[in-house]
Amino acid sequence: MIIHRASSETTLRNQSITLFKILQKSIADALEASDAQGRFTASSWERPDESASYGGGGISLLLEQGRIFEQAGVNFSAVEGTLPAEMVERLTGQREAAPFFATGVSLVVHPISPHIPTTHANVRYLEVGARAWFGGGLDLTPFLLYDEDATHFHQVLKSTCDRHDPEAYLKYKKWCDDYFYLPHRGETRGIGGLFFDYLGREGNPEPSTFLPFVREIGESFVECYLPLVERRAATPWTNEEKTFQLHRRGRYIEFNLLYDRGTLFGLKTGGRVSSIFMSFPPQACWKPYEEVPAHPRARSLLEVVRGEPRSWA
Amino acid sequence: MIIHRASSETTLRNQSITLFKILQKSIADALEASDAQGRFTASSWERPDESASYGGGGISLLLEQGRIFEQAGVNFSAVEGTLPAEMVERLTGQREAAPFFATGVSLVVHPISPHIPTTHANVRYLEVGARAWFGGGLDLTPFLLYDEDATHFHQVLKSTCDRHDPEAYLKYKKWCDDYFYLPHRGETRGIGGLFFDYLGREGNPEPSTFLPFVREIGESFVECYLPLVERRAATPWTNEEKTFQLHRRGRYIEFNLLYDRGTLFGLKTGGRVSSIFMSFPPQACWKPYEEVPAHPRARSLLEVVRGEPRSWA
Repeated sequence: MIIHRASSETTLRNQSITLFKILQKSIADALEASDAQGRFTASSWERPDESASYGGGGISLLLEQGRIFEQAGVNFSAVEGTLPAEMVERLTGQREAAPFFATGVSLVVHPISPHIPTTHANVRYLEVGARAWFGGGLDLTPFLLYDEDATHFHQVLKSTCDRHDPEAYLKYKKWCDDYFYLPHRGETRGIGGLFFDYLGREGNPEPSTFLPFVREIGESFVECYLPLVERRAATPWTNEEKTFQLHRRGRYIEFNLLYDRGTLFGLKTGGRVSSIFMSFPPQACWKPYEEVPAHPRARSLLEVVRGEPRSWA
Repeated sequence: MIIHRASSETTLRNQSITLFKILQKSIADALEASDAQGRFTASSWERPDESASYGGGGISLLLEQGRIFEQAGVNFSAVEGTLPAEMVERLTGQREAAPFFATGVSLVVHPISPHIPTTHANVRYLEVGARAWFGGGLDLTPFLLYDEDATHFHQVLKSTCDRHDPEAYLKYKKWCDDYFYLPHRGETRGIGGLFFDYLGREGNPEPSTFLPFVREIGESFVECYLPLVERRAATPWTNEEKTFQLHRRGRYIEFNLLYDRGTLFGLKTGGRVSSIFMSFPPQACWKPYEEVPAHPRARSLLEVVRGEPRSWA
């Protein structure tokens, strides 16, 4: 894998790779400890740069059918190659094919219980031509809504942001609300979180300035999410509650296949299908005419995802 | 609804509307008789042309949780308005906004049993500016593959085609194989059928020439599909067989959300969400790493959808 090639140099690229590999391991360990039954299995993959346009590899960690988690995928990858001009233009404004490098950690957790939210997190480092930047985010998709869980998630994110930039939290929260939106449903995917991109791209400040922020955001995942798992793990659920979850998971799939940039980029550029589909819930349902749910926590969720984005922290 | 306005004139538009309404009723009656338990419920909808760009309405028939059919939707609609220039260019080659009218019947049937294939059919009549044409098709998505069922489906389609044009079957079969393809999976959605479009658009022969063909294709649905239901209705299934069906249904959803023109057009232009989601299976599953199935009929299906399109008739 390319990631070994220059690993002795302390470039930002190598620092990012090292950070993301440690992050992948520590998050997977924490999820395993929380599940207390399911185990992650690792698969490494490599794509040699035969086509002279893409090469690289990664390590996928997958936990299936745990005690708490129906499925959890935590993926690390580092790829490089040449980006076509149109894509370079979208990313940097300059319309010219350019070499790129990308590394990141991406994770999605689908719990069995409808009382425990689904969550997604991603941190990434990109180089395109002479530019380099960080991006990432965390977001929460509850089914039966506990306001205090949404608040906890956002408060941890806010205090992490506040340590770096007092304007970051609100800016990245809005970006997240705007991004995870399904126009055909008039709904957000969940209760939001953070979404940020292009940190350091203009070189002022330097991309390296943002490494500590990205590290802390990645590390905050465990503190954002695992307390919610602990709070709700013992709560039993009814068929009605499970069915509501399965229909909401349908929305998750709609978002990923219709709007998610990462999913569409991966599927349309020959990405690794098994890594992409790790983000999909193992089971989901659809119903052409959905009844208004009687369950107060299901109704609360719908009010939130169909209303103006709420202030949680 | 607009469809009442000029119903006394014997225009091609009105003939199509009359045909499609009769077709909707006769197909729904036949499916109900075959299910012998589930009943269709009708919902009419109307969209007044307030925006001065779209108007019209339709009748949606939906059967849920029958004895045989987990869900069957048979939709009639007739809409008119103004199409934006880009869309007119894609349809007719002329880049200029133009009035349009569209009417059709569209149906999708999701049986409970993995021995009975899912099927989809559509016939439609369009007017864009001064042009008018017919389009449509039928296709079959088996789970556990019975070669004789695929052959029956294609043989009925071939003999219907042959009565009108000896070249039609192979031409429209190929179009169908090309259309229902998932590049990211390297698979066709099912075992194909027919797909045709733009019949009569160039005016030579006139669109009206194709009305009898479109009528017979629509009427052939019952003969194509219901014998397969009768053959397999009494066959019990295992959990393994049902699970295979649920994972194949995942592919159906991937196709619809990533590639299906009708679905994407509907979702991105403010179409009626409940009618669009009638085509979605009520339940589906995903798994990042899929095992090669041990079941011989599941293996046969995968060989067919992953291989070169087969000659069935």
